[in-house]
Amino acid sequence: MTEPRSTLDNVRIVLVQTWHPGNIGAAARAMRTMGLTQLVLVNPRQFPDEEATRMAAGGEFLLEQAHVVERLEDAVADCGAVVGLSARLRNLPLPQFEEGDDMARELMALAEDMPVALVFGRERSGLTNDEIACCTHQLSLPANPDYPILNLSQAVQVCAHELYRAWRHRNADDTASTQAPAGGREKDLPPTREQMQHFQQSLAAALQEAGFLNQPHAQTLERLQNFYQRSSPTRKELSLLQGALRALVDPAKKP
Amino acid sequence: MTEPRSTLDNVRIVLVQTWHPGNIGAAARAMRTMGLTQLVLVNPRQFPDEEATRMAAGGEFLLEQAHVVERLEDAVADCGAVVGLSARLRNLPLPQFEEGDDMARELMALAEDMPVALVFGRERSGLTNDEIACCTHQLSLPANPDYPILNLSQAVQVCAHELYRAWRHRNADDTASTQAPAGGREKDLPPTREQMQHFQQSLAAALQEAGFLNQPHAQTLERLQNFYQRSSPTRKELSLLQGALRALVDPAKKP
Repeated sequence: MTEPRSTLDNVRIVLVQTWHPGNIGAAARAMRTMGLTQLVLVNPRQFPDEEATRMAAGGEFLLEQAHVVERLEDAVADCGAVVGLSARLRNLPLPQFEEGDDMARELMALAEDMPVALVFGRERSGLTNDEIACCTHQLSLPANPDYPILNLSQAVQVCAHELYRAWRHRNADDTASTQAPAGGREKDLPPTREQMQHFQQSLAAALQEAGFLNQPHAQTLERLQNFYQRSSPTRKELSLLQGALRALVDPAKKP
Repeated sequence: MTEPRSTLDNVRIVLVQTWHPGNIGAAARAMRTMGLTQLVLVNPRQFPDEEATRMAAGGEFLLEQAHVVERLEDAVADCGAVVGLSARLRNLPLPQFEEGDDMARELMALAEDMPVALVFGRERSGLTNDEIACCTHQLSLPANPDYPILNLSQAVQVCAHELYRAWRHRNADDTASTQAPAGGREKDLPPTREQMQHFQQSLAAALQEAGFLNQPHAQTLERLQNFYQRSSPTRKELSLLQGALRALVDPAKKP
């Protein structure tokens, strides 16, 4: 079945080590109802599975098209934003979305130019700290403080609904306005997850080498990495930061 | 368990002749995650049921509290608004909500004073025309035109999420003018203009020394300084950036 390509096709729903195949199927159905197509499964416990197929209903072909990978890194390396969902906000230095609609607006804007991902963790234990470290943002859907644990596939449905709405409103805005202004200026793309990771690692190595990280309790590295993450450097800015870092570390290597 | 009465307790979720007990349970869980408590079942095919209890998870007590009635009329007679959900808008003379959030705002406003209801139909056939006639409004959640059929419990989750958000925003508006909440967390002050200038100058000197600014036309320094300026580092972050810069320039001078 060929369908017109849309920005929604740049949105990747990533499910990490899902236990119940039924949740995978229900998530696929949820995606289908909201125009999403890209499902990625990281090390699912049991897949393919009859229960997944049954729960998927009209979303069954998304299961057939789904990518299955071993590690979360492989699912999101090329993404411009990676939003990790958490039932409770962790005390981690990641930029946070307070609301589903804030997340959706920002993601659909980025999805015009590059893939973006929403990452959902295990039913019982959510995402590990290492997996959260793969993310560029956190989202914790505001919920009843006494019981904030949405079923996995229902969290997917809520997020998909937000994304679809943000997409519809963007399209309405685009068509409502007059001709797009002639653009001479190149668009400022965000860097890929991989490029950002590379910079963060270079920064860590350089500061370690310089003896600046000798007080682990001070969380110096985490704070600096968080600063660069939340500053959202453009691809060009990141390139300059990387170059500057290299130059400072070794003045002999002129760029 | 006694919980404080809230406007959310005036919202009734009504499920008409649900076929799968699992959907009743999942709906109860969805309600619980969003602070809703009033579940009414009109002539459910199979209830109570193990599957409903299993899927309800932390929402199990909502099943125990649920009212079971024979006719939709009996579930909504005293309601100030009754919103019927439909996968496709019917050609019926009922006021229609175009979006979940429009519905939620209006319902939560009314719920301050009287009960209101959301009515969900059968999995396969939705609501009959007579049942729609019991309603004051229709809502059709905007969805993929090729496949707009959300699973029943997922539609409940999406609506519950909208209602909870509308409720929170109403409360926020009410309390906005009162005194600021007591803060335990130290505030992140911005740096002074002087501190920022000092950093920018240090950056310029370091990069000049490292030979990184040997192409004036590239505006490398301006772009990097602009990056740091627009990133609005906190006073603490700027202090770390300054320290990091010093360490990279001269590793012998440990801070």
